[in-house]
Amino acid sequence: MRKILAIDAGGTSTRAVVLDLSGRCLGYGRAGSGNPTAAGVEGAVAELAKAAERAVTSDGSATGQGSTALIALAGAVSPLLLERLAERFGALGFEGEPVIEPDLLGTYFSGTFGHEGYAIIAGTGAVAGRVTEGRLDFARGGTGWLLGDGGSGYWIGHQVVRAVVAALDGLGPDTALTLPLLASVNIETTSGSVRGRPNSLVSLMDATYALRPVDLARFAPLAFDALEDPVARGILTASATALADLLAATRAPDVDGPVVLGGSVLAAGMRVAPAIFAEPLEMAAGGAELIPVTDGVVGAAVLGLEHAGVDVDAQLFSRLRDDVARLQSAVPL
Amino acid sequence: MRKILAIDAGGTSTRAVVLDLSGRCLGYGRAGSGNPTAAGVEGAVAELAKAAERAVTSDGSATGQGSTALIALAGAVSPLLLERLAERFGALGFEGEPVIEPDLLGTYFSGTFGHEGYAIIAGTGAVAGRVTEGRLDFARGGTGWLLGDGGSGYWIGHQVVRAVVAALDGLGPDTALTLPLLASVNIETTSGSVRGRPNSLVSLMDATYALRPVDLARFAPLAFDALEDPVARGILTASATALADLLAATRAPDVDGPVVLGGSVLAAGMRVAPAIFAEPLEMAAGGAELIPVTDGVVGAAVLGLEHAGVDVDAQLFSRLRDDVARLQSAVPL
Repeated sequence: MRKILAIDAGGTSTRAVVLDLSGRCLGYGRAGSGNPTAAGVEGAVAELAKAAERAVTSDGSATGQGSTALIALAGAVSPLLLERLAERFGALGFEGEPVIEPDLLGTYFSGTFGHEGYAIIAGTGAVAGRVTEGRLDFARGGTGWLLGDGGSGYWIGHQVVRAVVAALDGLGPDTALTLPLLASVNIETTSGSVRGRPNSLVSLMDATYALRPVDLARFAPLAFDALEDPVARGILTASATALADLLAATRAPDVDGPVVLGGSVLAAGMRVAPAIFAEPLEMAAGGAELIPVTDGVVGAAVLGLEHAGVDVDAQLFSRLRDDVARLQSAVPL
Repeated sequence: MRKILAIDAGGTSTRAVVLDLSGRCLGYGRAGSGNPTAAGVEGAVAELAKAAERAVTSDGSATGQGSTALIALAGAVSPLLLERLAERFGALGFEGEPVIEPDLLGTYFSGTFGHEGYAIIAGTGAVAGRVTEGRLDFARGGTGWLLGDGGSGYWIGHQVVRAVVAALDGLGPDTALTLPLLASVNIETTSGSVRGRPNSLVSLMDATYALRPVDLARFAPLAFDALEDPVARGILTASATALADLLAATRAPDVDGPVVLGGSVLAAGMRVAPAIFAEPLEMAAGGAELIPVTDGVVGAAVLGLEHAGVDVDAQLFSRLRDDVARLQSAVPL
């Protein structure tokens, strides 16, 4: 049977689904980071292949001639990556180099089968784009932790750490973020000081400078856990404003269609802090429907089907979503 | 003759002076970064030794028994650094491990011989402190590019790059900073685009992610060169506010005395942008005198004399300043 291997490769985890050309999902697998920027080429190849192997194994039926692979992925891919993936996927019965599509399109088609609209992803980074005729027409953001990505998970985590450092250094207000942050890096709060600085500040400096800067994204959830704290609320309010501005910058007056919301920050924002996130995003969407999605694997499947010449209509899209949800519920996170 | 080797070790350059116990300056030398955080232990040892050797060579007279060394330096020093310096300075006739004092004290005593007051340094980083009884009593800031240092040279340079990225990405206002920044990293502005982004944005991302983050400090002067631009003025106004807040956080009601201003950002701020920098700093100083200094080498000499049991009074301080100025004017930058 001719099949499609469709993969949503994220900076934290990767999801793969095997489907036939009728859109029936046959197998599903998860693995770690499949993003070459985050994991390196060899690391990404290993995780992409692992997710693919798991999906193929959970399928179990034979993969026929003409089967192909597609990956939705952030950023650029190297010829080396494509070559290595062709090898690994070839061993599983999927022919040639995989097609690469932007992660924004994977996210977009996870929320809708329509060919016109918008997508915004706020995970570790933040990026938004406009879709016309089923293609990514225009993108903003995605310039990374150092240069942009305002409102992203990195940005929130960085602001959390800076706010706690300022509080411990007497340069900012006290905040309920302090104790959870110190606990998350295993610092006991003691009263002593080193070279005129509180022990806990010195330990926090040591712990955070030992991380890669982008890993500060891991502290973003602390802000969502402290919604009563004015400092945390201020950080999240500024995040929501930055993400709404990012979305607004992609809007074109003649392009209608829904706004698909992806990534952990928007998921948390819409679920646990809707009072902060919903209104600015609704304003930026100009009345269009907001559709939150949990990942981009349904969209990767839609893109895989379209690349194979299959039109995805409402009925097929609905089946894809149900199938993927069923397969995902059977695989422990 | 018993002598003192006094060194002001900065992140960019290092200055050494040799003096006798009457405060007469006999020799002077400059070298590169003597800060072990910026240059590594071996790099710092090499530059500190080079500055010392140049000072001793320009002195030319014999160094007698009981001669010692003192270094004013930001941050912590390792036993390895002290051991290596004892070797190198020992070969020049200065005995034992050098005494290490905070760079804030070197800056402070470059501006005044009084034993009570304040110092603030804004170079690549930003730190401020309170001096009582001639010792650094209390410090704020200095938590580095990732965690703090609001208003510093790194902070200004980072804001310059982020503002240009936002302008090129359509997420922020146009700014006169764009062309000088692109020129400074040898990017020609062309009209094409790569993956939906302007060529110049992609090239700027490549150029800046290739730097160490802290090296973004090199772009701070672009803001001072664009005082008519609202974006640049906004960055410098926020810098001045952050530095004034840092200084204010060190103030104690019972500690009077002048405020000594050190570091390239405060030098540029007070000289080319006094309309932006002077008022907030004067407010934060609560009416105390502001004394800008160009480096911390006079202060290192004051500290070296005091460690050798010599009281530095107005007359001796004035002689030290004149002597150092004379020696510095003879050494090309």
